Amino acid sequence: MHKATPELIQQIVSEVLNEIELEAIPIGISNRHVHLTEQDFQQLFPGETLTPMKPLKQPGEFAAEQTVTIVGSKGEQSRVRILGPFRKRSQAEISMTDTRTLGIPAPVRLSGHLEDAAEVTLKNGEHCVTIKGCIVAKRHIHMSFKDMARFKLSAGDTVSVRVKTEERTTLFEDVEIRPGEKFILEMHVDTDEANAANIKPDTVGSLIRR
Amino acid sequence: MHKATPELIQQIVSEVLNEIELEAIPIGISNRHVHLTEQDFQQLFPGETLTPMKPLKQPGEFAAEQTVTIVGSKGEQSRVRILGPFRKRSQAEISMTDTRTLGIPAPVRLSGHLEDAAEVTLKNGEHCVTIKGCIVAKRHIHMSFKDMARFKLSAGDTVSVRVKTEERTTLFEDVEIRPGEKFILEMHVDTDEANAANIKPDTVGSLIRR
Repeated sequence: MHKATPELIQQIVSEVLNEIELEAIPIGISNRHVHLTEQDFQQLFPGETLTPMKPLKQPGEFAAEQTVTIVGSKGEQSRVRILGPFRKRSQAEISMTDTRTLGIPAPVRLSGHLEDAAEVTLKNGEHCVTIKGCIVAKRHIHMSFKDMARFKLSAGDTVSVRVKTEERTTLFEDVEIRPGEKFILEMHVDTDEANAANIKPDTVGSLIRR
Repeated sequence: MHKATPELIQQIVSEVLNEIELEAIPIGISNRHVHLTEQDFQQLFPGETLTPMKPLKQPGEFAAEQTVTIVGSKGEQSRVRILGPFRKRSQAEISMTDTRTLGIPAPVRLSGHLEDAAEVTLKNGEHCVTIKGCIVAKRHIHMSFKDMARFKLSAGDTVSVRVKTEERTTLFEDVEIRPGEKFILEMHVDTDEANAANIKPDTVGSLIRR
């Protein structure tokens, strides 16, 4: 094999990146939010019904009318949207910026992986509930089995997504694939990641399999 | 040339990334801060002296004892540190998260490039000054001319820096080189970028020339 000179390496990197940026991935920006069990919802909103306000892109999921206040050791964040439908475990997803502002030591974890999630109190007026379910969401792509086959990806694979933007082009590695029969192809990043890469609502990423 | 199959491309990408991650770049995380002209400082702190509290990594630069409040259309942020020494133009650097929270439409710009910077009011008690100098800092690397020669870089070049971290490995492109005779090698990212990539105070990046 030839000796890899810096110039040759640069040329290869450029050509490789140009070759492989083939697949456009729509990007959704997740603001802080909570998912609740029906039981926790009833404790916070006795007698109320979880009311859909706006459908989300993934089929059946919606932003609800109801919001809660997240209480940390350093501060509170009011008007945090509940996303429906109900889940088997309650979960709060905040940004790493929030972990510092609110004083909640939440780890970066894929949704549903709550083994070492932080404890957090959710509040609605005088009603409150404490859950061990606060995480900073790990970036991921919702993908149908059909799309996974098209991209030759398996459950558990991670990929990279390049986001070309004004002044802040970024390649996100460690992007997990979240397979689901009815999932619409969509990468989810949080507000820190969106801000760091200057992502706007219409920004599209490029899938790079690694 | 051979046909570039997806498998071959992946192998090349991996080998290339492994080959070229040679140069370690220390990373500094910039919290929101302001630089002031002596005149603007005197307007905010009549009769006072800008008092060094802690030296920064770059020679001669320091965090001052004094702080100001940044006032936006949606909110205020108190205790924003002044960095010294005085500059020829006053400048406030906030995160993109701050632009939304405070309601200040600051663009992503390299420090000192204030042509279309946002207008912002700085306040100390009843004293205040309004400057057209609020930006979201573009990521950059402080680099001495000696280091630039070592990396074979010229003024105006941009590079990429890969940051390998727990759960959030990220390649930052669009990283500008800021040359200076006495600069200590250091990449500056803001808090959004640090949070998006799970960067801790001891995280080191890898320079990738593009």
